[in-house]
Amino acid sequence: MTTLPLGPGPEFDRIRAIAGRLGPAAAGLGDDAAVIPLGGTNLVASIDCSVEGVHFRTDWMTFREIGWRATAAALSDLAAEGAEVIGVLATVGAGSGKRETGHVDPVVEIMDGVAAAVASVGGKVLGGDLVRSDKYIVDVCVLGETTRAVTRGGAKPGDGIWVTGAFGGPGAALASLMKGEKPSGPHRARFAHPEPRIAAGRWLAGHGAHAMIDVSDGLAADLGHLAAASGVSVTVAAERVPCVPGVAWAAALASGEEYELAVALPGGFGAEAEFRTATGVSLTRIGDVGAGSGVHVTHEGRSVAAPAGFDHFR
Amino acid sequence: MTTLPLGPGPEFDRIRAIAGRLGPAAAGLGDDAAVIPLGGTNLVASIDCSVEGVHFRTDWMTFREIGWRATAAALSDLAAEGAEVIGVLATVGAGSGKRETGHVDPVVEIMDGVAAAVASVGGKVLGGDLVRSDKYIVDVCVLGETTRAVTRGGAKPGDGIWVTGAFGGPGAALASLMKGEKPSGPHRARFAHPEPRIAAGRWLAGHGAHAMIDVSDGLAADLGHLAAASGVSVTVAAERVPCVPGVAWAAALASGEEYELAVALPGGFGAEAEFRTATGVSLTRIGDVGAGSGVHVTHEGRSVAAPAGFDHFR
Repeated sequence: MTTLPLGPGPEFDRIRAIAGRLGPAAAGLGDDAAVIPLGGTNLVASIDCSVEGVHFRTDWMTFREIGWRATAAALSDLAAEGAEVIGVLATVGAGSGKRETGHVDPVVEIMDGVAAAVASVGGKVLGGDLVRSDKYIVDVCVLGETTRAVTRGGAKPGDGIWVTGAFGGPGAALASLMKGEKPSGPHRARFAHPEPRIAAGRWLAGHGAHAMIDVSDGLAADLGHLAAASGVSVTVAAERVPCVPGVAWAAALASGEEYELAVALPGGFGAEAEFRTATGVSLTRIGDVGAGSGVHVTHEGRSVAAPAGFDHFR
Repeated sequence: MTTLPLGPGPEFDRIRAIAGRLGPAAAGLGDDAAVIPLGGTNLVASIDCSVEGVHFRTDWMTFREIGWRATAAALSDLAAEGAEVIGVLATVGAGSGKRETGHVDPVVEIMDGVAAAVASVGGKVLGGDLVRSDKYIVDVCVLGETTRAVTRGGAKPGDGIWVTGAFGGPGAALASLMKGEKPSGPHRARFAHPEPRIAAGRWLAGHGAHAMIDVSDGLAADLGHLAAASGVSVTVAAERVPCVPGVAWAAALASGEEYELAVALPGGFGAEAEFRTATGVSLTRIGDVGAGSGVHVTHEGRSVAAPAGFDHFR
């Protein structure tokens, strides 16, 4: 546990420091979720916290959207393991006196969004806690189950690198919001209402996925985690990265909180049409796994710099 | 789910409002923890958040104690179900610039306390999240397992009401701290270093416990939840409540965050010596279950007012 296979960055340095201090008291840190054998299957668990002013602003989304988005973000870690959803436990922090005008209790609205997100993928709200805090906080612990978990660590040279969906929407929405402008409808939907890729993750786990990660830090940065965990290099052809309309490839590679999946599949994989029929989501090959380490980005055959990881909207 | 069996109070009214809004999207709310059948056993899960200024102050405890206490509080919900511990996932919130003098990173110290508490009962740290927040926050999701969960809802008329340990320590420590005085060593230990009653809960679950709850809101208030969930009345003989030295029965009945267990056992139960040998903790009969509803407190045979629930240190 003292050398977690994460990519570079100060946030990951701190996680490495904690893992080193905890030693054998910690288990399973460094993947999207913990996988715990239990009663003949595997329990899959992860926790993900969204904080006002760091992950969202209350003038950008409704409280119900805030609850949905925080929950979809957490569920994305289950998707990346190929797990099905059992349910979530959610802590909501809010000022005790904070009530909007009219009859809306933000805490009830947030929990309604939490419940809607988990219900959309077949799970339930299993528990929660309400606390007083200066800023709104939504901390979501997700629980899932799978007989075969897909970690970040199984990519092999010769595999193809594939992604679900199209990239850049949340980044474009955020750029508009930061300028005080109204994002386009499709960009805003990708930002405020991400869909957890549970069905996609389960399909890929059942069709030979070697390694999988969900894209929260940015596609290039998350492929860096996958490469580090697998002990391989990843080469991405930037012109192949599917972008939402109005977004260029460089922005799409850097855009965080996408909650799409990046997956290493055997080199001969060719069932993307079958995947699309089963899940309603596109699957696109954007690169290859090789020997070595790190993420290498090319554009029309020429090497270009990989964008730095996304670190929320500081 | 629209009428959760909780005792009275505005906090519980809000939880009832949320449960009513969520309807079938929620499951298992209203007990100490959710119990989910999984692969031939039961997964038991709960989440509990501690916030600086609400549940603790940084000048009252070390950061390691803050992590321990938050985790012990959350683990107490597993104890109340009779579950064994799998592990915890913990979100820690701290200001990005908040570092104490010297080389101590509060976040690492808090996580070290989290890990120590869960290791003390045989579990591991399974995951976590680090976020920036104005106040320190420790949100702990606990995961356990049991083939036979003990809920709050199984007490029957004729049962005895028993408690583990002795009461009033945390309340006495808090009273001293609020006055700017130093608490006594034993009182402070009960406040800063509560021991999760996992072994006690498992023993009681295996020896016929009908209903169980952990004492977080105060003994009288939590027995109110147990009575409401079971559809019974509970009568407590105040003079029988075991008190830590220096604490009177009225304070012991009101003291919150005790993290001892209150349990309904069949009327003929008499194995308290065996329990003590097995767990190292005392078990004391303090009252009886009857028909009707609510909590009734007597002192030397005369009816007295039950103290109101504990609501942290507002």
